[in-house]
Amino acid sequence: MEALDYHAEERRKAEFDLEEMKIVWAGSRQNYEISDRMARLVASDPVFRKDNRTMLSRKDLFKDTLRKAAHAWKRIIELRLSEEEAHMLRSYVDQPAFTDLHWGMFIPAIKGQGTEEQHEKWLPMAYKMQIIGCYAQTELGHGSNVQGLETTATFDPQTDEFVIHSPTLTSSKWWPGGLGKVSTHAVVYARLITGAQDHGVHGFIVQLRSLDDHSPLPGITVGDIGMKFGSGAYNSMDNGLLRFDHVRIPRNQMLMRVSQVTREGKFVQSDVPRQLVYGTMVYVRQTIVSDASCALARAVCIATRYSAVRRQFGSQNGGPETQVIDYKTQQSRLFPLLASAYAFRFVGEWLKWLYTDVTQRLQASDFSTLPEAHACTAGLKSMTTSVTADAIEECRKLCGGHGYLSNSGLPELFAVYIPTCTYEGDNVVLLLQVARFLMKTVSQLGSGKKPVGTTAYMGRAEHLMQCRCEVERAEDWLKPSVILEAFEARAFRMSIACAKNLSKFSNPEDGFSELSPDLLEAAIAHCQLIVVSKYIEKLQQDIPGKGVKRQLEILCNVYALHLLHKHLGDFVTTSCITPKQGALANEQLRLLYSQVRPNAITLVDAFNYTDHYLGSVLGCYNGNVYQRLYEEAWKDPLNDTVVPDGYLEYVWPILKQHIRTARL
Amino acid sequence: MEALDYHAEERRKAEFDLEEMKIVWAGSRQNYEISDRMARLVASDPVFRKDNRTMLSRKDLFKDTLRKAAHAWKRIIELRLSEEEAHMLRSYVDQPAFTDLHWGMFIPAIKGQGTEEQHEKWLPMAYKMQIIGCYAQTELGHGSNVQGLETTATFDPQTDEFVIHSPTLTSSKWWPGGLGKVSTHAVVYARLITGAQDHGVHGFIVQLRSLDDHSPLPGITVGDIGMKFGSGAYNSMDNGLLRFDHVRIPRNQMLMRVSQVTREGKFVQSDVPRQLVYGTMVYVRQTIVSDASCALARAVCIATRYSAVRRQFGSQNGGPETQVIDYKTQQSRLFPLLASAYAFRFVGEWLKWLYTDVTQRLQASDFSTLPEAHACTAGLKSMTTSVTADAIEECRKLCGGHGYLSNSGLPELFAVYIPTCTYEGDNVVLLLQVARFLMKTVSQLGSGKKPVGTTAYMGRAEHLMQCRCEVERAEDWLKPSVILEAFEARAFRMSIACAKNLSKFSNPEDGFSELSPDLLEAAIAHCQLIVVSKYIEKLQQDIPGKGVKRQLEILCNVYALHLLHKHLGDFVTTSCITPKQGALANEQLRLLYSQVRPNAITLVDAFNYTDHYLGSVLGCYNGNVYQRLYEEAWKDPLNDTVVPDGYLEYVWPILKQHIRTARL
Repeated sequence: MEALDYHAEERRKAEFDLEEMKIVWAGSRQNYEISDRMARLVASDPVFRKDNRTMLSRKDLFKDTLRKAAHAWKRIIELRLSEEEAHMLRSYVDQPAFTDLHWGMFIPAIKGQGTEEQHEKWLPMAYKMQIIGCYAQTELGHGSNVQGLETTATFDPQTDEFVIHSPTLTSSKWWPGGLGKVSTHAVVYARLITGAQDHGVHGFIVQLRSLDDHSPLPGITVGDIGMKFGSGAYNSMDNGLLRFDHVRIPRNQMLMRVSQVTREGKFVQSDVPRQLVYGTMVYVRQTIVSDASCALARAVCIATRYSAVRRQFGSQNGGPETQVIDYKTQQSRLFPLLASAYAFRFVGEWLKWLYTDVTQRLQASDFSTLPEAHACTAGLKSMTTSVTADAIEECRKLCGGHGYLSNSGLPELFAVYIPTCTYEGDNVVLLLQVARFLMKTVSQLGSGKKPVGTTAYMGRAEHLMQCRCEVERAEDWLKPSVILEAFEARAFRMSIACAKNLSKFSNPEDGFSELSPDLLEAAIAHCQLIVVSKYIEKLQQDIPGKGVKRQLEILCNVYALHLLHKHLGDFVTTSCITPKQGALANEQLRLLYSQVRPNAITLVDAFNYTDHYLGSVLGCYNGNVYQRLYEEAWKDPLNDTVVPDGYLEYVWPILKQHIRTARL
Repeated sequence: MEALDYHAEERRKAEFDLEEMKIVWAGSRQNYEISDRMARLVASDPVFRKDNRTMLSRKDLFKDTLRKAAHAWKRIIELRLSEEEAHMLRSYVDQPAFTDLHWGMFIPAIKGQGTEEQHEKWLPMAYKMQIIGCYAQTELGHGSNVQGLETTATFDPQTDEFVIHSPTLTSSKWWPGGLGKVSTHAVVYARLITGAQDHGVHGFIVQLRSLDDHSPLPGITVGDIGMKFGSGAYNSMDNGLLRFDHVRIPRNQMLMRVSQVTREGKFVQSDVPRQLVYGTMVYVRQTIVSDASCALARAVCIATRYSAVRRQFGSQNGGPETQVIDYKTQQSRLFPLLASAYAFRFVGEWLKWLYTDVTQRLQASDFSTLPEAHACTAGLKSMTTSVTADAIEECRKLCGGHGYLSNSGLPELFAVYIPTCTYEGDNVVLLLQVARFLMKTVSQLGSGKKPVGTTAYMGRAEHLMQCRCEVERAEDWLKPSVILEAFEARAFRMSIACAKNLSKFSNPEDGFSELSPDLLEAAIAHCQLIVVSKYIEKLQQDIPGKGVKRQLEILCNVYALHLLHKHLGDFVTTSCITPKQGALANEQLRLLYSQVRPNAITLVDAFNYTDHYLGSVLGCYNGNVYQRLYEEAWKDPLNDTVVPDGYLEYVWPILKQHIRTARL
């Protein structure tokens, strides 16, 4: 039997080499091969089945997650997978689990903040999972403001111990994943108190549960914080609460790489530069940007494939209706998201390079680029995750009514993705950090201090304040130099306008707070410029494969011009472009959509997602959507019986007019 | 014991009369009283408890819904509630159920499309709920394009019956609420075939299930379509699928008010004007706009109250941190939504008047205002529901991490609300209808045909093309006439620009399709103008109560100016305002936020929502948020046991290094 493929005709339309595009997307042939192998490994293993996930009760879902985590660990050991492969395998299992925090937060915290001695003691156990750990920072009353945490760790010189305590309700640890039901240990952040002195927040390794019977140790109250957004999604995770009633730990369980407490209770700062923690932040946020491109690509893949299957209106002479992907309204919403997925992918790749660069400089004690790198990663984390969260919901809407079904995959993708906008730095708080850095950079422009990295463009202040966009015809908007200059001028002029308005306030902090909504907009303009410029840089590289570069150029233009249209007010009010030039950009954008159209299906095939990973009836590779929707429907528990449970008690008495006497 | 109220101080700050504002919000004192009574009735009844809803399995949730529906019906009968009271009671139960469709679609369809004879036969049974009905229109492959439905109703003159049949997979009825498990009857939309002629889509009353044992009748395949977005939400509803295998119904079960089939099989159109159906559409969409203001108000109420409780950063000398509602970034996101809730409320009220007006004209066979009224309600349905859906998610984000917990109420509010953007007309399709009407209106401007109703402003074409905004200082933006003219000029010039671009195409349909993204923007500008102008009209009425009118004026200005800022590109590129004037509007907006701030809590109190209806720990009236979060957490099923189910099988073997031999 010939394999069924409703998208076959679409796939024949592609004007580029799919296999090369897959490698571009993956970053390298090697990445592509590992990723492909891990994805298939997961997809072919019945334990990792996830199509029934949204129907499980909380308890069953949690148990299912424990099973998958154990099975993944078993496979990782059996197949002797590398750390990278293991990480990829877990990500294709695609179900949040305590292991994410153990590997992603607990171990890195000990590595980054622990001494050599502490590494030797704790890491081997953690690597073998003889202990399972989580990262207990956030409290019920304290999230973004880490310095406001209330949990205390008071040194008792008599016993050489710290006493960990939760003095208030709001000091209860709240949210840490893996804490609620599984972790045996935690890195707990608490205010260090010696004598009567508060030394601010530090990390401590605390055992929470008995390694014999898993019961919480004395003085520890721990549990799950309850249901979260969606069915499935993060309900597979035991986000937890934790209270300490004077729990004692040995002194050597404070993470002492940067600061120490001596046997006598003296607080000492080591000579390890504190800036090292920024290196870790750059690392974590770089992975978040890369994950954003993945999540966005999943949503776009589903919406694109379904838009080619779905037909509505436009039937002529009884022929088939028009594929909704052929409607300009659909294209103008979908294709910018497709372009964004590629744009975020490339900026994520660049961030990987940035992390390496920062690490090498740190090792050479060169901290000069750190503030800029920190602002840049904070901004990109914020911008890409906010866009991705909204884009997943937009893709759901692009799938019409059927996008609302759980088996479209989009509801769960949305539910599982949105916390990214909050964790590792609230997106608004992060943008304000970017804005603060931009204002500082602007204020130093006259001083001879040259702006570096992604703010280097600000060094061309005079040019950027004076330059005039030279677009006269729509196709002029295809020139990278024209686009780049428009985005640079807009970002710069918005920063300058903010700085000017700030200078009117006698108290700069009052001004910053009063003008913060404008500052957010300036920060976003700066972040969008970074993404555009890194995409343009990517295109300057050698990209093999027939038609591949051409497609990427088209998407780059779509990305830039859709932003220009969306933020037209910015560009025009700063006189970077004229209204007429704005209209020409919009005209060009429409032409670009027509060029994306024949390649759309193949451009999402390049993500190389398995049907298992996509988890979407609407986005399945062969496009056999309606048949699968029909088959999936019957699996709902409500269809177990013809007459539903509750009919006799609650429906029959209504129909038979016995409602007054019914016992309800 | 004194009642605890963490918001007491906030409530003392209010500068207006709360009781009068409650009446303004409710529309009248009478509405207020009924609504208040029904809300309390539901809130005080333990059967209507809903705090455990997101934890129930699909089957248990469905059974719980049947129970609540039966209990609501019992109470409605016992208390002899009026139709209006019954409707309100059901809406406060706040759990989608089959009764919504029975009362909201099945009965109205028979009333609107049935003959007198059919009314007499079916309505008494339906009113007593001796039969339960649903509305079976949408099919697996057909949503927006009703004329593309595939189900057939073929007249058989030999037996005087229609044969209802599902000829293809895509013709399966799909989505109708109440169909899957409960309804005994349905109004089924199918292509009417007599002889070999297809007369298009008509409605038929079809019995689906036995009234004895509830089993599906011969030839009928019926079931639930499966899980939908979120936990709780629409999973309480049995959205269903339905297939017919040559099911026969008597001829008199075709709804024959507008068209008939005679005993001989002749298709006859009655002299009842087909325009009557538009009256129903105006009615239904008016209720959707009114519901949008309710849903938006719920989300805003939760986010506002929590923003006053939540504190983060800004502690000075060990004092409390700053309430997040005091941050300008929070205000600039939250207060426009608060203003939108009021704006949508008032435009919804006006739509009620419009419906009465349209109905009276229809009775007098005056169809002149119908196209305008239809376009206007379509546009407002689209615009208000899209804004509300996005706003609920924005409110969730405004609640930070805790907004992600189910008991914040926002996840479920989002999940239950978003289908509104799709049903009763997909929001994009509706906006295109508005755009089509606008283009028609523009094309007739020279012809002497005067634009009516909400398009009347287009009659002042010359003025609107030439007028220049006269704002010189920020406070000039407070004048209603200035705002109104800017919105009128922008909407008009955008329509004119579209019309001009359309005229360049030789085929107008090609042009309409090519320019559809621009047309959407013109339609949105028109809809925003309607809301602004109806709000301004409302303010011209006599509004009693100390400070009430003043607060409403402030919110009106916030509503208009935040739109102006958001769509600055529109206003500036059409030369309606200058960049400088745009900056002044933004400045004024910031000042307005400071005026809203002290009244914010009381402005959401005016919605008069019970804690039961809000269903939000973060939004509870007394603001005792942290205590309640802590207490609610322990109710999660995962906390039933200290050691979770699955520990022995899946966690213990990992910790004890027995994973290789574990049976998973």
